[in-house]
Amino acid sequence: MPISAGHGSIGLHWSRRCALLAWLLAASSYSHAWEECADAGATPHVQKLGEMPQHNYGRPGLSHMTIWGAKHHSMKELEVWLQTFAPGSGTPIHRHDCEEVFIVQAGEAAYLRAEVDGEKESGRPGPRVGSRAAANSTFRIPLNAVHQVRNLHPTEALTVLVIISKPPIRVYIYDTWDTPHDAATLSFPYPWDTVCPEDLRTQEQLDTREL
Amino acid sequence: MPISAGHGSIGLHWSRRCALLAWLLAASSYSHAWEECADAGATPHVQKLGEMPQHNYGRPGLSHMTIWGAKHHSMKELEVWLQTFAPGSGTPIHRHDCEEVFIVQAGEAAYLRAEVDGEKESGRPGPRVGSRAAANSTFRIPLNAVHQVRNLHPTEALTVLVIISKPPIRVYIYDTWDTPHDAATLSFPYPWDTVCPEDLRTQEQLDTREL
Repeated sequence: MPISAGHGSIGLHWSRRCALLAWLLAASSYSHAWEECADAGATPHVQKLGEMPQHNYGRPGLSHMTIWGAKHHSMKELEVWLQTFAPGSGTPIHRHDCEEVFIVQAGEAAYLRAEVDGEKESGRPGPRVGSRAAANSTFRIPLNAVHQVRNLHPTEALTVLVIISKPPIRVYIYDTWDTPHDAATLSFPYPWDTVCPEDLRTQEQLDTREL
Repeated sequence: MPISAGHGSIGLHWSRRCALLAWLLAASSYSHAWEECADAGATPHVQKLGEMPQHNYGRPGLSHMTIWGAKHHSMKELEVWLQTFAPGSGTPIHRHDCEEVFIVQAGEAAYLRAEVDGEKESGRPGPRVGSRAAANSTFRIPLNAVHQVRNLHPTEALTVLVIISKPPIRVYIYDTWDTPHDAATLSFPYPWDTVCPEDLRTQEQLDTREL
């Protein structure tokens, strides 16, 4: 038993070292993923939206532009996107630990969100509420509410201005509305937080890479 | 000496009680200023911008709408405003400890902001940079940068979407660009954070109250 205890003690010692090493590797990987773009601090004072890069990041029907972001422009507390969804496209069912505001610029957004209250016992998204929001309308998503935004219009594109707090965003994606919270998949960094504006200039190259 | 020490002890005792009382009164006053509006939690899921209240809050040339705010809608991490400035009007010279993004919707914004670096020795706003931003352009204000946004166009109104982090905003106002930082005046709560949407329905009443 003393030997066993000794082994146990040595094992704990090494497991602590291993845990530290794993933590350091993870931290190093995290920090690498969150390096700001090389010219994040040199952003022009004024940016013209019509001249800023946008891309679909491998999502059919999406066009995404990071107007101001943590990775692209060294933002610390908020991030602003412009997104266009072709008819029939939309976001995955997902949640994040930040506030989010949508302002519809054109088209009509259909959104569903699960009530955060009343879902604690089931461990799954709670009853859903939702609505349609036309141009010049706005809606917001509370912290950690599971939600989805879609363009259900048969022919018209949906364009939304999206604002989030606490970038960079960490998104948990749900396969269905019945997926338990602890089975949601973390997507981090999110696809548009893996690419810098200078990379977006070579769009063909981006189109063929795995995101 | 023991009596004196005794008095000292009692004095300290009472000063501590007084300090506690003062703190409680201050906290109570702060909490009163930051009570959310009665219907903050009952905000409709979708808001139509064209139906939301706006006001000048005693500032000539301004029209301000809180699209999503801490006091009005129980927002915790970000706030969104729509503001229109008549020709010749603008913001005061000011700073705040939150990030801010402007997106110009119509007209042309002229803005100046002091560089945060290089001002530490003087205790005043540093050298200024600035530019003009036309419709569909955007600019951002870093944390604590002293800045001012104005509409210098002779005839056209300026409309901007404004996004801030960490509401409620605490604004330090400078009389001039030479005002030392420690002589800037705190405005808190900021005028549009003193009024709830239901009060804005009686605009004539608001026009005559002191803000």
